[in-house]
Amino acid sequence: MENLQLGKAFTLIEPGPVLFVTTNDAQKDNVMTISWSMVLDFEASFAITTGPWNYSYAALEKTKECVLAIPTAEMIDAVVGVGTCSGKDTDKFQKFGLTPLQANHVQAPRIKECLANIECRVVDIVSHYNIVILEGVAASLDPSHKDKRLLHAIGDGTFTVDSHKIDRREAMRSKLPNGV
Amino acid sequence: MENLQLGKAFTLIEPGPVLFVTTNDAQKDNVMTISWSMVLDFEASFAITTGPWNYSYAALEKTKECVLAIPTAEMIDAVVGVGTCSGKDTDKFQKFGLTPLQANHVQAPRIKECLANIECRVVDIVSHYNIVILEGVAASLDPSHKDKRLLHAIGDGTFTVDSHKIDRREAMRSKLPNGV
Repeated sequence: MENLQLGKAFTLIEPGPVLFVTTNDAQKDNVMTISWSMVLDFEASFAITTGPWNYSYAALEKTKECVLAIPTAEMIDAVVGVGTCSGKDTDKFQKFGLTPLQANHVQAPRIKECLANIECRVVDIVSHYNIVILEGVAASLDPSHKDKRLLHAIGDGTFTVDSHKIDRREAMRSKLPNGV
Repeated sequence: MENLQLGKAFTLIEPGPVLFVTTNDAQKDNVMTISWSMVLDFEASFAITTGPWNYSYAALEKTKECVLAIPTAEMIDAVVGVGTCSGKDTDKFQKFGLTPLQANHVQAPRIKECLANIECRVVDIVSHYNIVILEGVAASLDPSHKDKRLLHAIGDGTFTVDSHKIDRREAMRSKLPNGV
């Protein structure tokens, strides 16, 4: 994993990929699959929808830290596996072949097998809507990661995989933040 | 456009596609491009990030209505065009060849060329985070739409296009809401 400029972290979330959210409750690491996430600004602020029905929520609420890790298409079985069992009774890192990597600013682990990781602090919880507000504090990316195709959950048990890219940088120039 | 069961509307937003958001301020129709959106629950509740810097925001705030319209890959030029000019001085429907279709429950128009449309009411604005909370009241889908590939904005002026689908319905069954 190499450092990624924090001002580019939103480009990992804006396309709407399935994410892993890792936590560490001072006893153990845990990870959940999330597909309800959103960018809030160009400064690495994000929102995710979660609540007490997710076992990871207690750790999020208590530690106010997590890592958003971005899996790619070849990791589909880990994505589905992590999303369909609970950290309450399962070591999901071990079960699904995910390697925890120490993060630089939070206790929650990064995931070695992922394309990228964003270390985050929980800055607020809008509990009426189950929205958790995150502030990215560091980002890292694996430039040697061969598969860069993100996964998008449909929500009915199917997922789409990224295909080719369309470049409209020139036309979009007036709307892009500096340095992106 | 055929009616789509409202309980399936979240499957249009969960994959994280670029969206059009239409409004009608009682004077004229308008449309903006949004890629910061999120599902809040299985009952057609959504969040989008927007604020006074978008011309459409005034209409959203005043009328408390909009339509989320889902474009597909062949509409990339309309997506970029709509996203890089303002309804303040441009009739974007005319300029980008989009056809407004009367909605059933809101004054904001649906878009005929889109794969699907979700008619929404604004139920709240979490202004500190520029989050607009939407409740879908009706959804429609064009079953004859040939191109079903969604577009995902990266945020740097490039977009990825959906490729093939991976089916994990059986493995995900325990996590899916009824009827999806």
